Amino acid sequence: MITSKIVVHSRPEPNITGLMKIDIVKIGGNVVDNEQMLQSFAKDFAAMEGARILVHGGGVMASSMQKRLGMEPVMVDGRRVTDAQTLEIVTMVYAGWCSKHITAALQKNGCNAIGLCGADGNTIRATRRPPVRITGTKDDASGTVRETDYGFVGDIIPAGVNVRFLESLVNQGMTPVLCAITYDGNGNLLNTNADTIASSVAEALAEAGHETVLTYCFEKDGVLYDKDDPDSIIMEITPALYTTLKAEGRVADGMIPKLDNAFKALQNGVSRVVIKHAANLGNTRGTAITL
Amino acid sequence: MITSKIVVHSRPEPNITGLMKIDIVKIGGNVVDNEQMLQSFAKDFAAMEGARILVHGGGVMASSMQKRLGMEPVMVDGRRVTDAQTLEIVTMVYAGWCSKHITAALQKNGCNAIGLCGADGNTIRATRRPPVRITGTKDDASGTVRETDYGFVGDIIPAGVNVRFLESLVNQGMTPVLCAITYDGNGNLLNTNADTIASSVAEALAEAGHETVLTYCFEKDGVLYDKDDPDSIIMEITPALYTTLKAEGRVADGMIPKLDNAFKALQNGVSRVVIKHAANLGNTRGTAITL
Repeated sequence: MITSKIVVHSRPEPNITGLMKIDIVKIGGNVVDNEQMLQSFAKDFAAMEGARILVHGGGVMASSMQKRLGMEPVMVDGRRVTDAQTLEIVTMVYAGWCSKHITAALQKNGCNAIGLCGADGNTIRATRRPPVRITGTKDDASGTVRETDYGFVGDIIPAGVNVRFLESLVNQGMTPVLCAITYDGNGNLLNTNADTIASSVAEALAEAGHETVLTYCFEKDGVLYDKDDPDSIIMEITPALYTTLKAEGRVADGMIPKLDNAFKALQNGVSRVVIKHAANLGNTRGTAITL
Repeated sequence: MITSKIVVHSRPEPNITGLMKIDIVKIGGNVVDNEQMLQSFAKDFAAMEGARILVHGGGVMASSMQKRLGMEPVMVDGRRVTDAQTLEIVTMVYAGWCSKHITAALQKNGCNAIGLCGADGNTIRATRRPPVRITGTKDDASGTVRETDYGFVGDIIPAGVNVRFLESLVNQGMTPVLCAITYDGNGNLLNTNADTIASSVAEALAEAGHETVLTYCFEKDGVLYDKDDPDSIIMEITPALYTTLKAEGRVADGMIPKLDNAFKALQNGVSRVVIKHAANLGNTRGTAITL
């Protein structure tokens, strides 16, 4: 049951060493794009207790804005190729409308949110991805090598997450709301996958000694064994089961990098990773990823 | 002369009572829209010493984005009528691209900037402006009464500027970068004139006891006596001279609310107000407004 209690600008209680339990919750673009789902999620997220950070996508709206401006979105292996004009659009959509709309919705529910991109307060620093060689994907069954330049796409650098700043905000009772825009420290904004931002932030906070829980929220009830049966939620995925699921083709597309991120996060000290429906934030329904 | 020294994440030195000198600098949309002018400004602004807050416009780009999306910008008395779709666009442009582009440019120059709208950290709270009655403007020389509903346009409420949060950021060596988007605390973002945001922030900080200097930067060298002579800068405008200039038609359009804001700021405790070219941030060229 989700309680309807609203915690007004409460501060998390750090333990005596200054370490905290911190929830890192990520919501996908399909949630952000659905006004009713977003408002309901904002209420539930605001009602959570303790320190928390929200990471959001916005890909659906970015693609729609690209089309309205006469551009055709180009995706390679589920990731957006980001030329200069696309960077401007994703920055407007993610760091502009999505970030501020979510922040206003959280503030309405008494959660002192602050929408940030990587450049703000030097929160997340990345480096532009060099052109990558890709072999044997489903778009290229022959297995020949292709080279893709993703453009202004950033990979978070080691120690690129500004843990001290995030701690300072959380200690002031604030809730950082992070979008999928990072920067290179040299004046360039970069487009970075929001799932990766969520896991990188969780890993950096875990490395600093905090107990971190990473929750991926989207528009399904969890990882499904049968994608056509919404009740076939897999309650727990271990590395062995993951291998089987991949071999059987039961997980594919965007779920593969999400699960890869999840296992990597656990290996890097994150306490718990869960994949669930945005409407189930306050209950236990969902898929737990375990080592 | 502007020094080229870059102050890397320096912290301002508060005096023993915790009060500081704080510069509030506003740049207009024409500066933000000119990449060369913006980069040069970012370098000069980053080289300033002490506590400072940047407020930026972005109206030129908002109008251009409206047109690209098939909308015609509607302005009444120099202010944008903001329906729901326009609100989405100005939020994307101001809080998205402009805010993050400026923030990244400042970070590049060693200034630890953080781009915020009013909803972020509850920084600036406003109330939606009711339809207003307007008489005898230049668009309506007959002097008959018109009523205009500006839509999602916000007027900052008393005590609506979160002085404690701005102080806390500045005390951490950070530089808030504020855009022209505020919010009502009830989930709604609002469009608020950037000149007014700058003067309201300066007044609120002055009221809290800080010594505040407000500088309006735009693409001219100051208030000109003859608008066709760029060298006819008026060095000082007193209330008496302002009355004369208005009567002679030497100041008009956007300069009138800017000067009204300037005098109001001085009356409300702001120490100094200057109007100057963005390229002259580091020197004394410009128009001082005095009581």
